[in-house]
Formats: sequence, C-alpha cells, structure tokens
Amino acid sequence: MTQLPPTCRAIHLVERPVGEPRRADFRTVETALPEPGPGEILVRNTWMSIDPSTRIRMDEVGSGYMPSFEIDRPIEGWAVGEVVRSHDPALPVGGHVLHPFGWREFSVMAAEAPGRMGAVPIEVRDDAPAHLYLGALGWVGLTAYVGLFDVAELRDGDVVFVSGGAGAVGGLAIQIAKLRGHYVVGSAGSAAKVAYIRDELGADAAFCYQDGDLPAQLRDAAPDGIDVYFDNVAGDHLEAALDALRPRGRVALCGAISAYNEVEAPPGPRNLFEAVAKGLTLRGFLARMYPERLDEFRREMRGWLAAGEVVYPETVFEGLEQAPAALTAMMRGENVGKTLVKLD
Amino acid sequence: MTQLPPTCRAIHLVERPVGEPRRADFRTVETALPEPGPGEILVRNTWMSIDPSTRIRMDEVGSGYMPSFEIDRPIEGWAVGEVVRSHDPALPVGGHVLHPFGWREFSVMAAEAPGRMGAVPIEVRDDAPAHLYLGALGWVGLTAYVGLFDVAELRDGDVVFVSGGAGAVGGLAIQIAKLRGHYVVGSAGSAAKVAYIRDELGADAAFCYQDGDLPAQLRDAAPDGIDVYFDNVAGDHLEAALDALRPRGRVALCGAISAYNEVEAPPGPRNLFEAVAKGLTLRGFLARMYPERLDEFRREMRGWLAAGEVVYPETVFEGLEQAPAALTAMMRGENVGKTLVKLD
Repeated sequence: MTQLPPTCRAIHLVERPVGEPRRADFRTVETALPEPGPGEILVRNTWMSIDPSTRIRMDEVGSGYMPSFEIDRPIEGWAVGEVVRSHDPALPVGGHVLHPFGWREFSVMAAEAPGRMGAVPIEVRDDAPAHLYLGALGWVGLTAYVGLFDVAELRDGDVVFVSGGAGAVGGLAIQIAKLRGHYVVGSAGSAAKVAYIRDELGADAAFCYQDGDLPAQLRDAAPDGIDVYFDNVAGDHLEAALDALRPRGRVALCGAISAYNEVEAPPGPRNLFEAVAKGLTLRGFLARMYPERLDEFRREMRGWLAAGEVVYPETVFEGLEQAPAALTAMMRGENVGKTLVKLD
Repeated sequence: MTQLPPTCRAIHLVERPVGEPRRADFRTVETALPEPGPGEILVRNTWMSIDPSTRIRMDEVGSGYMPSFEIDRPIEGWAVGEVVRSHDPALPVGGHVLHPFGWREFSVMAAEAPGRMGAVPIEVRDDAPAHLYLGALGWVGLTAYVGLFDVAELRDGDVVFVSGGAGAVGGLAIQIAKLRGHYVVGSAGSAAKVAYIRDELGADAAFCYQDGDLPAQLRDAAPDGIDVYFDNVAGDHLEAALDALRPRGRVALCGAISAYNEVEAPPGPRNLFEAVAKGLTLRGFLARMYPERLDEFRREMRGWLAAGEVVYPETVFEGLEQAPAALTAMMRGENVGKTLVKLD
C-alpha cells in the first residue's frame, strides 16, 4: 500500500459571495485522511478543473443546474486523480478516475451510478494524459462538440458565431467548426484574445466586445448574417446574435458567464421577437445531457489533438491554495483557454 | 358583368401611433374604383381579419416580420372576397380568394407567386364558409396546429400550457391539445375568459393573470410542471413558463401581444438560464413557414368543426369604418375568439 499522509486539506466555503468572490469567502481546512467505506475508494487528486458553474453553486439559490454548496463544507468541482485505496474491485488501486469532488487533496467516493455522482474510470495514455479529461477530452470538449452538432444542428455552409471564443469551450467550438469548413466569427474581451482567436484558432473574423457597438461589430464580421450562434456569454451578445441570425437560424445556449457574478438577474434579450419573425430555435444544453456521444467525441478529439489540428491551451495554477485565485481569474476573463489547478 | 359602384373606400394610416392607436391615426379615403391591370383581378372584400401583426406594422421599424405600413397609404391585412373582374384565367369572376390587401372595400392584385404576396383561391362550401379562411381554416388555425405539432413537437403525455387561451390562436391550441388527450392549462385576462377556457374549451385548469403572482398560479394549475408552453404573450408569462418547464421541455414562441403597444422594447426573460439547466428548446415561428402542412391541417380542422369537437367563436364588427375600433378592442383583450370585420 502506498505511503499516504496522515492528514489532508480541502477548501471550504465559509461565506456566500456577493458579486465577485473574495479570499475571505474561502477557508483551507486540514483533517485526518478520510477512510473509504464499503464499496468506496480513496482518490489522490492530481488535477482540478476551475469552472464557471462553481461560482453559481456558491449562491444560496441554485439554478436547477446543480445543488448549492453548503456553508462550512468543501467546495466541489471536477477533478482527476489516482485511486490509492479501494473497496471496489471495478476501481482498483493505481487506476485513474474522473469525479466531481475536487477542491481537496484527497476525496472519498463510490463509483458513479444512475442517480449518483461518483468516480468514472478514465483511460490515461500518451495521447490522452489525465488532465485532458478535465478539458478537451472531458465535459469541456463534449460541450463544444454536441453544442455544434447536436444542439445547433450545424449544416453545411452555415456561418457560425462563437462568443467567449478565447475560453475553453469557445476555443474548441471555433476550431471544430473550422475543421468542418465553416466561416467562423469569434468574440472575446481583449485585443490579445482577439488576435489569438484569429491567428491561433483560425477564425475568419474576430472582434473585441470591449470596443463597443456589438451589433455593428458582428455585422462587419458577418455582413450577410449568421446561421448558428454558440452562446457562451448571453446578455448583449445574445441580443446582437438574434438580430444577425438569418431565417431558421439556431442558437446553442451554453452558459451565461456574464451573469454569474450579478446580484440581480440580468434582463433577457429584448428582441426575442426576432425568433418569431425568423423562425429561430434557441436550445439550452449541458454536455452531460448527451452521454451517448462521449465515445465518438473522444475518438474524434484524440485524433484532432494528435494531428495538431486542434490546439488546447491551459492556464495552470499550482497547489490547492491557488484554487480561489484561479476561479476569480477565470471569471474576470484573465485566462486563455482552460483553467486548471495542479496538485503536488 | 356585375354592377359595381363607381367609388370605394379604404382606411389609410396618417400618423404612426405611440402606444395604443387613436382614431385620428386613421383616415377613411374614398377613391374611384380601381381597374385591374394585365394578369390582375379586382376583389370585392366580404370579410377582413383584425390581427395583432397589424399593430406592429404601424411602427416605423418593422421587425423583419412584414414591412412597415407607409403613411397616407392603405393599411393591409388578411381578407377574403369575391373576384368581380379578372384578367387571370386561373382566378375567374365569381370565385373566392384569400389575400393580404384588406382594410378596403375593393382590392386589386395578382395571384400569389414565389416572392410575391397575392390572391390564393379558397374553396367556399357549406362546411367551410369564406370567413373561416381568416380563422379556423386559415393562418390562425394553422398557427395553433403547427405550433403544437411541428414547433413544440407535442409528445404523448405532455402537460401543455397555453397563454392567451381565450384568443383565436390560443383557444384552438387548447382544444387541439385536449383532442389529443393532453392535460392543458390556459391563462387569460379576465374571470369571464377563464370560465370560458375551462367550461367551453375544456381546459383542465385555467387562471387569470390579472390576479397576480403568475408563477404561483401556474404551479397550482400544473403542480408537477409543464412540458410544452404555447406562448401567445411573452413577457412575464414566458418567465413563469421557463421556471415551470420540465427537463427537455419546449416553447413555441408564437407572438408577443403584450409588447406590441410598448414604446420601449420590453426586457426578455431574466431566467433564460433555465433553458441551459434543463435543456429547453424555444422555437419561434409563423404559420406561413409551414405551407406544406396546410392541406392536412384543413382536412382535420374541417372534421373537428363539423363534428362540433372544436368551437371557434368570433367577434364581428360591421362595416369598414369599424376596423380601427376592432383593432383597439382586440389589442385591449376585450374580445373573445377571432376578431373580424364584415363588409356587407
């Protein structure tokens, strides 16, 4: 049996943030190393994912999405790790798992089962290192993939607009749409990100929403309108897209990062009537609603990554204590690509 | 050749209304009877439809829906009439046509063609009188029909919520959903209309939005939530429905009558994120986007009407001069069912 430390640390939520989280909303708590019960495993976490949904779950009222975090209990989030103790023969010591109990150094859990979140074994290999299961080969990648193909029902010749194009999901959506031969427009929040979207990700046009007049910038980027809008930010981007969408256009509603820090719910698009006039479809989704697409997606994505056809940058913070700072940086849009925390 | 009068009247728009239209925004103009040109016909209108879309087209900025009316020109709207002069062998004198050039006693037009609005022959018979082509057998009926089956993709067992349930479209949607065995909730703006929805149209539950707390009333009417929302009013109804919709629920966005009189565009739903969390689909539509469904719809609707399985009340105003008052009454929700103007 591997030598394990007697104690381990986790980050707890001690105060519900109003607006942007402050360091004082979090506390690092050291406890005795937990013991897995019958059927359970102990996982030494190696990588943690920092996700926008974590901010939503800090609020008292969830969104029907995932439950709100409890006060004085560990925060949760996607993580990968190595099984170090096991009372489940299907998840042996030495194997790797993906699970939703991050923000701590060690986690105890059972295997995922219908109606129960838990550990899912992952196949770690040279062309699929563990941390990619938190990103390009995980929910992030599946979100971009099913958002385009299943939710927005991408068709040959569609002009595609992706907001949050420098983010983890948006960046993959841009590249996948380009691989399929589409004209793709991306938006982001700084000149550096716009250059990245155009030069590194290959978007045909890109603009910075900080430059103002979103509708005009979108019109300049796609003078004949758009057919698909991959929405990572909602708010004014969605309004501009509704104006720009052509008849029978489709919107994949993927998230609303612009709203997560808002105390008051922001107003929805004032021009939703465009959907009536043009026969538009808006469809919300979460990647986990499409588990049947996971195998095909991973096969295709591994190929793209191996061939260098898809780039997938990561911003890595080192050590558990950095998780709150990583969350804030991601919410502020300071990162490029996927935000991760590497443990030990 | 029928004896025709030397002059005829039309209602012109002379001022763009701000908010609710006033009588002074309209003027009745008498002119010489127009002569049909080559390929054209002259139609003596017998019935005119009063539609919410007419109010939108009075504003300077259209909605991409249909063009804005010109000042000092006749208002337009759906009408049926008899061909009284014809230079088109396909539309002979004595035949009946449906066309979009109402708000006048006589209209000149050519046959409808790709890219051109115009006259469409209708089959007037005992079980299908002319005025029903402006309602139950026309765009109104097709709106209810495709809104449920094609747009909301109605499935066995779905719980259905219809706003504007005492209106022409809403009333048909409620009855069609009931004929297919669904649990149906309707909303309207007065106690009398609520009673009508429940007692005459057969809704399982109905409530009056004037009584306040729309979300609570909808929860009481459908405690386990809804699967389909047929949206005739937008605004707060759409917000309440987004909260009540169950996973994979669907919204048919049919209109936004609550907004047509607004000077400022109203905010959209503040809870659109529910669509992400629950994988909801919102799809806008106009009946004319589904012409391929017209024949099947008319066959089925004639059967329902003949069997007394669908009731279709009409509020009839007599004479061209009453058209502005009819429009205002309809926008205020003073009518039950379809609003028509009968021209002797």
